Amino acid sequence: MVTTKTVRGHNTFGLIEVRSQKADMTVIGVDIGGTKALAVAMDDGRIVAEQRSVLDRSTPTIDALIGAIDEVAEGPIDAIGVGVAGLVRVADGVFVWGPHVPGTEIPIRSLLAARYEVPIVVDNDANVAALAEFTTGAGVGYRNGLLVTLGTGIGGAIVIDGSVYRGESFAGEWGHVRVAEGGLLCDCGKRGCWETRASGPALARLAREVIAANPDGSLAGSLQGSEVIGETIVAAADAGEETARALVAEVGRAFGNGLSDLIAIFDPEIVIVGGGLGSVGESIVGPARRIVVDSVHGGNLRVPPTIQVASLGPSAGAIGAAMAAADLARVG
Amino acid sequence: MVTTKTVRGHNTFGLIEVRSQKADMTVIGVDIGGTKALAVAMDDGRIVAEQRSVLDRSTPTIDALIGAIDEVAEGPIDAIGVGVAGLVRVADGVFVWGPHVPGTEIPIRSLLAARYEVPIVVDNDANVAALAEFTTGAGVGYRNGLLVTLGTGIGGAIVIDGSVYRGESFAGEWGHVRVAEGGLLCDCGKRGCWETRASGPALARLAREVIAANPDGSLAGSLQGSEVIGETIVAAADAGEETARALVAEVGRAFGNGLSDLIAIFDPEIVIVGGGLGSVGESIVGPARRIVVDSVHGGNLRVPPTIQVASLGPSAGAIGAAMAAADLARVG
Repeated sequence: MVTTKTVRGHNTFGLIEVRSQKADMTVIGVDIGGTKALAVAMDDGRIVAEQRSVLDRSTPTIDALIGAIDEVAEGPIDAIGVGVAGLVRVADGVFVWGPHVPGTEIPIRSLLAARYEVPIVVDNDANVAALAEFTTGAGVGYRNGLLVTLGTGIGGAIVIDGSVYRGESFAGEWGHVRVAEGGLLCDCGKRGCWETRASGPALARLAREVIAANPDGSLAGSLQGSEVIGETIVAAADAGEETARALVAEVGRAFGNGLSDLIAIFDPEIVIVGGGLGSVGESIVGPARRIVVDSVHGGNLRVPPTIQVASLGPSAGAIGAAMAAADLARVG
Repeated sequence: MVTTKTVRGHNTFGLIEVRSQKADMTVIGVDIGGTKALAVAMDDGRIVAEQRSVLDRSTPTIDALIGAIDEVAEGPIDAIGVGVAGLVRVADGVFVWGPHVPGTEIPIRSLLAARYEVPIVVDNDANVAALAEFTTGAGVGYRNGLLVTLGTGIGGAIVIDGSVYRGESFAGEWGHVRVAEGGLLCDCGKRGCWETRASGPALARLAREVIAANPDGSLAGSLQGSEVIGETIVAAADAGEETARALVAEVGRAFGNGLSDLIAIFDPEIVIVGGGLGSVGESIVGPARRIVVDSVHGGNLRVPPTIQVASLGPSAGAIGAAMAAADLARVG
């Protein structure tokens, strides 16, 4: 089942050793969130193709997935793994609901199985990203930790004794812990969720407020011509624009306050910060780490955990989904 | 090592089957919190003596523990278990810190071992209560769940695959998750912690505000002569006093909001509510349960976990500490 493949997109990571993948296996991993889908094809433990699509809510989720898979698969495939932002029942591969992803109760596994006729696993996006990070990324060597993804929203995965812990199905949805009573309306329908304070959209909202109040100011100037989104504001901050730096630090602190709470709850060995915005690194994670040191329950009587940026970058979810698929193909 | 014992205090629970306790073993369990210590002596799986002490912060914690143990032990003992409200390093039996308990870095295990010369285990109070509840109480038959204790503060224990999960040491300190920015000052030194909204002292504070504003009102009348504490306010509510009912329901809802967050984080099979105030039952837990149904992440697309009142009552911690001691005596 080996096919010759052309590498498309950018292969950021070179050789990724996928645990227990048998030779000559081609698997597809797709990570689908609120604003984009990322698909990888992995062949014998190596990324051989990678494809990003920008999504809006008008595309049905299943169509976006099929599009991403067809785009990246060039020949026969052995298995497909999918990570979706939101509540996923792994047992039957149903996407139940997520505030950023269109549709509810979508039987993704059976819909894809009917089309592709290979083993398919569907899981929460952060759970598959954690599989990748704890197998080949920043979490190697750790047995108990959290992956916290910061992007369109905040997602998460719990790793206990080396495995992802899902509770009954949906554990890790801490982006929707309420941190601000009567706060901003969240996409989930409640107010004051952590991700209304710490996310790409939260950062963009702050920047738009500044620009509206001061359209000729330095921030507006530095973003001239760019879309006002998390990444461009971080880029402005990293280029030294002071207002952007202050806004990024504000979001970093809001992120860090929530991390302190998670540390009080889990006392993990390590917290890995991933996701599109979290992966940018120290601009966000630095202020978060300082807040944790200042505010973690128990203060200087305890050693706070390592807080580390994900090492597989924004592709961690797609890589992890492919790894889950490879595990499935091996056993099934 | 069997001695004849007189049952003192009240033996609420009759025969408790302690798992793996060998015959003819006498163990002591002590649960020490911010306002009281409860000690039990268990002999062959049965509570043979029980002793409550009211504490204030002027008594050093180790003296309070020794007093409670000496009070309840009438003859030779095989092991001692201690549960303390706060951060405890089980590995060396050191109480590191807790906002409600005097002292920091107290080497409880070695101090008690020098005096009693028996095996001693020291753990967090909610962790030992969870051992009891999941072995012989409301959690029997469940493998994944949370115990949330509501009393002077909020404590907690995480049970995963039938065992208490401690993270690196201190997991379950969700009473100090910040739910209200700039909220009331907590005993931990931060503002707006969950337990500033939901606890015995939080309920008493609300009642004192009402009484101060309306000293001749119905609430003041119904509490005449009683101390204004959580238990008396719940008693007034259960007797039908409307203001007390409203205040108890308010605290119940604040408690339920935090439970919703914990359910988003853990997706547990069961949440057991214990502690001095939580154990009073439906007056508090009813409003909490309704808030969870209304506000849990995923709404009616998911089945919320069972939320159940602890069945061993306020003695769960002392019983669990004795059970941990029995386990230790058996293996050590």
